[in-house]
Amino acid sequence: MSALSRVLILADRVRPPRMAHAHCDLPCGVYDPAQARIEAESVKGCMEKFNGSDDNVFKTRAVYIKEQRAELVKHHLWVLWTDYFKPNHLEKYPQLHELFWKATKAAGETKKTNDVKVAEELLNHIAEIDKIFWETKQA
Amino acid sequence: MSALSRVLILADRVRPPRMAHAHCDLPCGVYDPAQARIEAESVKGCMEKFNGSDDNVFKTRAVYIKEQRAELVKHHLWVLWTDYFKPNHLEKYPQLHELFWKATKAAGETKKTNDVKVAEELLNHIAEIDKIFWETKQA
Amino acid sequence: MSALSRVLILADRVRPPRMAHAHCDLPCGVYDPAQARIEAESVKGCMEKFNGSDDNVFKTRAVYIKEQRAELVKHHLWVLWTDYFKPNHLEKYPQLHELFWKATKAAGETKKTNDVKVAEELLNHIAEIDKIFWETKQA
Amino acid sequence: MSALSRVLILADRVRPPRMAHAHCDLPCGVYDPAQARIEAESVKGCMEKFNGSDDNVFKTRAVYIKEQRAELVKHHLWVLWTDYFKPNHLEKYPQLHELFWKATKAAGETKKTNDVKVAEELLNHIAEIDKIFWETKQA
Amino acid sequence: MSALSRVLILADRVRPPRMAHAHCDLPCGVYDPAQARIEAESVKGCMEKFNGSDDNVFKTRAVYIKEQRAELVKHHLWVLWTDYFKPNHLEKYPQLHELFWKATKAAGETKKTNDVKVAEELLNHIAEIDKIFWETKQA
Amino acid sequence: MSALSRVLILADRVRPPRMAHAHCDLPCGVYDPAQARIEAESVKGCMEKFNGSDDNVFKTRAVYIKEQRAELVKHHLWVLWTDYFKPNHLEKYPQLHELFWKATKAAGETKKTNDVKVAEELLNHIAEIDKIFWETKQA
Repeated sequence: MSALSRVLILADRVRPPRMAHAHCDLPCGVYDPAQARIEAESVKGCMEKFNGSDDNVFKTRAVYIKEQRAELVKHHLWVLWTDYFKPNHLEKYPQLHELFWKATKAAGETKKTNDVKVAEELLNHIAEIDKIFWETKQA
Repeated sequence: MSALSRVLILADRVRPPRMAHAHCDLPCGVYDPAQARIEAESVKGCMEKFNGSDDNVFKTRAVYIKEQRAELVKHHLWVLWTDYFKPNHLEKYPQLHELFWKATKAAGETKKTNDVKVAEELLNHIAEIDKIFWETKQA
Repeated sequence: MSALSRVLILADRVRPPRMAHAHCDLPCGVYDPAQARIEAESVKGCMEKFNGSDDNVFKTRAVYIKEQRAELVKHHLWVLWTDYFKPNHLEKYPQLHELFWKATKAAGETKKTNDVKVAEELLNHIAEIDKIFWETKQA
Repeated sequence: MSALSRVLILADRVRPPRMAHAHCDLPCGVYDPAQARIEAESVKGCMEKFNGSDDNVFKTRAVYIKEQRAELVKHHLWVLWTDYFKPNHLEKYPQLHELFWKATKAAGETKKTNDVKVAEELLNHIAEIDKIFWETKQA
Repeated sequence: MSALSRVLILADRVRPPRMAHAHCDLPCGVYDPAQARIEAESVKGCMEKFNGSDDNVFKTRAVYIKEQRAELVKHHLWVLWTDYFKPNHLEKYPQLHELFWKATKAAGETKKTNDVKVAEELLNHIAEIDKIFWETKQA
Repeated sequence: MSALSRVLILADRVRPPRMAHAHCDLPCGVYDPAQARIEAESVKGCMEKFNGSDDNVFKTRAVYIKEQRAELVKHHLWVLWTDYFKPNHLEKYPQLHELFWKATKAAGETKKTNDVKVAEELLNHIAEIDKIFWETKQA
């Protein structure tokens, strides 16, 4: 089990039970960093499959699917950044802009490589966002 | 807090800590019923906003956004049904076809109404699918 | 001419003349298995082009386009299964769930191979669905 | 039964049996005006539903769904015009440009109205395109 | 002619002639804030049409189309922020994060209102981004 | 600097200052050939990157991204042709149908090759359309 997985599981344990969503003051109003995380896990999965195969058609498909999934990661993160987070969150977490910038740039980087470390870096950024997100939900 | 929420939280508690995803033998290979559940919560949120407003433009937007979210619920459920579940799962859970049929039909119904009970019925179906899904992951 | 083509043409002959669509009780309410069939023919076409070429860029494009078309096949079939077919159809055709499951799984398989037989199997499943569909329209 | 329906059925009768698709020299290479026609029938269905209802939410949904379907009609027609038809077809059918321009403009008009006659005009244009299409396939 | 329009035209005049695009070190590598601006003008156009009409169906369509266009504004701005701008740009223009956050939030606001001033505020933010963008291209 | 670039810059100079958009009598009502041109430049950029690289994964991505961008070129051109141009424009510019047909066919050709000349031909067609477009705006 990777270090990241252990951290995520630990986070699940120490955090009080919570619902999988959160309402905001918009129509629909449901946000959850899990959406970005699931797609980022998919990106990592595509890299692993790519690296483990020597079938050219399969590898082509892995590249193509990874490209789409990484785009979804970016989309879900952008939505969180613009739509969920408010000025008062930014006052408390002044690193938010930089964090989202790095996270979405990391998502872009995962398109260009099959180095699993890049996907793990992306997952680390998302885990950081996830932590802040749930802190703001409890505030 | 709704009965459903309590059940979901309880389920979180009794289930051993788990990662937010699961790998299968396909490229990408990450599935999680949370994707359908988050969109279904969004559907429910749109209904509540619709019912609580008397601004016609706002209500129009709620209808439009709900339509899109319900479509995403259907998509995520269809993907689980066709891509994740295998014949051996069906042997153990012969209700799977009927369950997914009802769940996706319920998602379709949420487009046609703003009765929150219909969204909750959908969420119940998804919770049932979620339970089976994680049982198969542990097997 | 393939055996499948002959069967389809024969089916066209023995079936009384019909309109290319059918109304149901929903907004829009038009369904037609032809949508899935056309995309599945496109999948088969991509395979044939792939197999007949030794240009790597061309083959990459064939894989990419096939991936999209196969996804459309799945989508059109899922819509028929969930939106068109009703409990009374299922009573008369208890094989419907299994048939759609196999057909959408076959569509998924066509992404992973360029073996034309897999596309033909998919077309056979769609032809079976098409037959049932038009029987229910005449009932 | 509408006059248009009768014409379409008649056309089906006098035309020799044919496959539901046609291959061209491109990757994928499958075209069929049925795709545009099915969406146009859906547009007409949405209008009829809209006119037959006095439920505001339902009418909003009919408008929204019609908008999407009409866009699909345009897309399928544009693809036929640009991708399927070749200069030699245009020599034989010099009306093609004008016909597609009118048909896609008619599809745009169906977004702006719930007058079923506009949808029928669109269907007439598509029937004309369909006739030419299948003549070129037999040539 | 609005004050904003005059400013944009003036900007066109004093700026040396330029190409409509710019290459970066990525595949594709073409960025242009014009994409966001055109969609934002469309948002403003929808508002004006909405306000000038008393046809309910037309107004519903204006709301729906505006929703889509505003989403495209957000998308084009997010792409610029994450993909085009680099750390050295941020050093020189430390306001970039805040500017993009406000601009994308303004795009979100245009979904919720038909007050043309909100669209003009959005256009002002985009004009500011556009100015910085072209300065970085000349550096 | 390419000959085409020089022509475009020259066109910018001799044309009186203009707004980046134009209103028509539709909801939204904003058209601008710049949308097609930006995507076509992206297509050209993908070709150049493809030709300049010997990394297979990178080349696969270039092909895939070019495919999407070329599709967007077609879409933006089709919208201009069907939605913006009116019968009176066609009277004055009888070459419009043929010009758009060639331009969209050229966009299709750019999917099949990495020969930069094909992208430049496409850009020339778009420049021609752009010229006519702005003439009609001034009329």
